[in-house]
Amino acid sequence: MQWRGGDKTRSLGRSAFAHDFHATHDSHQAMTDKQGALVRLLPVKAAAPSLKDNTADLDRLKRALRPQLADRPLLLPTTRLAHLARNFRRHDFAGVAVGLELDHGLELIDFLAAPPAMVVGMALDLGTTHLEASLVELRSGRILARAHCENPQIVHGADILSRIHFADQNGGLPTLQQEIITAINGLAVDLTTQAATPVAEILVLTVAGNTTMTHFLLGLSPHHICREPYIPLANHLDPLPAAALGLQLHPAARVWVLPNIGSYFGGDLIAGIVASGLDEQEETAMLIDVGTNAEVILGNRDWLIACAGAAGPALEGGVARMGMRAGPGAIEHVEINPADGTIAYTTIANQPPKGICGSGVIDLVAGLYLARLIDIRGKFRPRAMGDRLVQGEDGPAFVVATAAQGAEGRPVLLGQVDLDALMRSKAAMYAILTTLTNQVGINFEQLQHIYVAGAFGRHIAPRQAIVLGMLPDLPLATYIPIGNSSLAGAEKVLLEPNAWQRCSRAARRITYVELNVNQEFMLRFSGSRFIPHTDHNLFPSVPFFEEA
Amino acid sequence: MQWRGGDKTRSLGRSAFAHDFHATHDSHQAMTDKQGALVRLLPVKAAAPSLKDNTADLDRLKRALRPQLADRPLLLPTTRLAHLARNFRRHDFAGVAVGLELDHGLELIDFLAAPPAMVVGMALDLGTTHLEASLVELRSGRILARAHCENPQIVHGADILSRIHFADQNGGLPTLQQEIITAINGLAVDLTTQAATPVAEILVLTVAGNTTMTHFLLGLSPHHICREPYIPLANHLDPLPAAALGLQLHPAARVWVLPNIGSYFGGDLIAGIVASGLDEQEETAMLIDVGTNAEVILGNRDWLIACAGAAGPALEGGVARMGMRAGPGAIEHVEINPADGTIAYTTIANQPPKGICGSGVIDLVAGLYLARLIDIRGKFRPRAMGDRLVQGEDGPAFVVATAAQGAEGRPVLLGQVDLDALMRSKAAMYAILTTLTNQVGINFEQLQHIYVAGAFGRHIAPRQAIVLGMLPDLPLATYIPIGNSSLAGAEKVLLEPNAWQRCSRAARRITYVELNVNQEFMLRFSGSRFIPHTDHNLFPSVPFFEEA
Repeated sequence: MQWRGGDKTRSLGRSAFAHDFHATHDSHQAMTDKQGALVRLLPVKAAAPSLKDNTADLDRLKRALRPQLADRPLLLPTTRLAHLARNFRRHDFAGVAVGLELDHGLELIDFLAAPPAMVVGMALDLGTTHLEASLVELRSGRILARAHCENPQIVHGADILSRIHFADQNGGLPTLQQEIITAINGLAVDLTTQAATPVAEILVLTVAGNTTMTHFLLGLSPHHICREPYIPLANHLDPLPAAALGLQLHPAARVWVLPNIGSYFGGDLIAGIVASGLDEQEETAMLIDVGTNAEVILGNRDWLIACAGAAGPALEGGVARMGMRAGPGAIEHVEINPADGTIAYTTIANQPPKGICGSGVIDLVAGLYLARLIDIRGKFRPRAMGDRLVQGEDGPAFVVATAAQGAEGRPVLLGQVDLDALMRSKAAMYAILTTLTNQVGINFEQLQHIYVAGAFGRHIAPRQAIVLGMLPDLPLATYIPIGNSSLAGAEKVLLEPNAWQRCSRAARRITYVELNVNQEFMLRFSGSRFIPHTDHNLFPSVPFFEEA
Repeated sequence: MQWRGGDKTRSLGRSAFAHDFHATHDSHQAMTDKQGALVRLLPVKAAAPSLKDNTADLDRLKRALRPQLADRPLLLPTTRLAHLARNFRRHDFAGVAVGLELDHGLELIDFLAAPPAMVVGMALDLGTTHLEASLVELRSGRILARAHCENPQIVHGADILSRIHFADQNGGLPTLQQEIITAINGLAVDLTTQAATPVAEILVLTVAGNTTMTHFLLGLSPHHICREPYIPLANHLDPLPAAALGLQLHPAARVWVLPNIGSYFGGDLIAGIVASGLDEQEETAMLIDVGTNAEVILGNRDWLIACAGAAGPALEGGVARMGMRAGPGAIEHVEINPADGTIAYTTIANQPPKGICGSGVIDLVAGLYLARLIDIRGKFRPRAMGDRLVQGEDGPAFVVATAAQGAEGRPVLLGQVDLDALMRSKAAMYAILTTLTNQVGINFEQLQHIYVAGAFGRHIAPRQAIVLGMLPDLPLATYIPIGNSSLAGAEKVLLEPNAWQRCSRAARRITYVELNVNQEFMLRFSGSRFIPHTDHNLFPSVPFFEEA
């Protein structure tokens, strides 16, 4: 991961990065068959009917396809019978049959006169906060368009718990479902408008989302997801007819929803596993995804172990009073001169600072530590701070940007309360990582790669996270940002023949470690509430300052 | 077949006969598994979720069912996910799963707390003129109710050709489809009201209809059915979701449509084959079904051959000027005293005569022949007829009932034109039978049974049909009326484990003889246009009168 301070707009171009990742780390085109993994185009040339061969049209079509299918069952959806028969005859019994690859057979959904110019699928990262989607040409693997939108459910609460409670109200669940469906329909129109193709050409949709969002999409009650013993209604689902959900794509399109493992471990992470290739590599690697929770997966082609914990809010910008998500005006990078304590920062889109995002907070706190403006417990050292320390609403605060510098004449502050929240988050993160590796008896040094997903992976500087003791003290090359791995995984399911099976397999074989009831985690959490750690031998590259 | 002159209401109680046939010729209960052939009830007792076993509800349900399914795929319809999950949890993870047996897996459609009092299916004979249905308890094989109605499409034409032309008009096909769907929904309500069970308890529907009616039901264009080379759009269909067709049964009910063989040989005849057992018997037998066409099937467990021809109208009461379908006031049985030419008749429901139905016409014409009132060409012999011969609108006519006897003071007449039509029909019937047996080189004497289906089979006296030379001169015990074999076959598919497979197998292996282009048929037709036949040695039991 390299410092990319020059690119101020990269948070708006998130998906371009995911695309890079595809191009660099994969070889889609070589691995896919001609129509992607889920769609199959079958050339057909049938004899015309005659008195001597009076096989019915649809039976004639099936007969013509049979040699290409071995013993695989051929399924015709009821709602497509008339259309298939009409097109088959209209095109003089020759053309191209379009099928969807289901577990139990090939489902015939269309009949065309000739191979289409484009075979189109849509991939979706169904996030709690944002939805991000791409339109993919399935033969070439080419990304035709990208689009994103805010999750419209945010009006019922930014956090997932509020929405789960809202779902329990009369009419709540259908409302939440409809909001998602409307948003996806909007994205589909946006994508196909960009690509100048009809929305009805989207034959397949792959969705990677967390367990609760998946339940909302399907209209399944999430009531028990947040109640012990935290059981989802469904984890593994066969591809669903898009129309049955109210999605306006191809009339017989289907939706592949990536499987969940449990209430707190959803298809978005399964997507990450498949996108990173964690489940196929011989060497053991780790995947870190920080959203509302921090979710961590460790493993290789033989085994996978995972856990999730509440390490996220401060890192995502949700807790710090001045915190904000990465967006225009967010301070995303901070440098403090250790010699004189002077501060320099950059903001996204070069706008006057409005707040500070997760990567900015990490930079800032690491800088404060190295400049000895905070102590190893993460507390301000008033004597060293001079006029940078002010009294804010919730107690002492550090002035990151002055009122003169800030947007609308307001300063950007980091309070002691924010600092405390970050210390808890960073401690939780390191405790999660050590608890997980300890479960399987390996050391961090044995990991060749640590994949860091999402906005967190894209924006933070691993060096500063190491200084804080949030990430293990490993060579920086170990850390590989993989962008929106949820979307990348959904795209992989569209394109790579075995990706869907890999998702199911990964979901079934992961061992999930529940941290809420884990004593070891609590002990390790306490030991991690210092910078960089109680045991500073764990972080040999980080300066350790004896407290005065 | 015995004369059942005492039962004047039997035409209204047609289906009771089909029930008798079941009871006498079959042993449903012994042959079926507990839930009939298409529905499977699976007891479930799953462990409650816990932190240590956090499998999602629906995956838990699938896991609990797995041991009962061997390797058979388990399918969950998208629209039933929420319902299944809700009921499974509401019933504390124990109860009865309700599945439909599809070719490619078991489709789970409901979850109940306990085995239901009744497991209900509906069978339907989808006729051009009438729809006839039964409600069946699938474990006991018991018929819970029967219902029938006129085909509402009749407003667009009594004959199928008018409706095919209507279907080609703008909005015609959807109208025809909707009329059938509405009629079936009405029958379902009627049946379940009789049985005091909710209509939503109908889990499966089996439909036997001719090819065109099947197309209307499915909204498939019948355009090519009546145009050379007479190709239907679909013959073999997998079970269809009832809701997708607009049927209001159980929300996840499916419809098994019995396969067609060609445009003029539909699922109603396949039903007849399965109902009669023609396809399973070692000895060769014949099945005759007279509707608008006469359809004849010959075969045994090793081979099946079939043909259809336009022999029906006069026999069904559609051509004779005074002809009518069997119904109240129809003369259905006639006796003529050969000594003095006096006539006696009975009418259905003992009402004043309004017309004469197929069986009455056959009786009448056989009686006229034996009393020598018509000659071997089927022409009136004026000298012998006295005042019974009058001049009608279309030429000479025989007074069956005088104006004083007839309903509303109108006589019932049989004109020479009617007689000519009957002669053509009877000639066609015999020619069909001989052409078909000749195709496989067997004699009528080798047939132990000739099954006679439908109203024709129920009402006619085979002895009179033999006198006319319509049916071969065999011992009367050879002829077995099997009632509404279309409905009986649909019921069998509901109840007997292999009946659906037998339908598919029969449809695939039947050899269909096209009579429209058959020279032999035309020759045999000419030879059959005498009473009983040009070659009167073929009918040794019938008196032969040298013409004066």
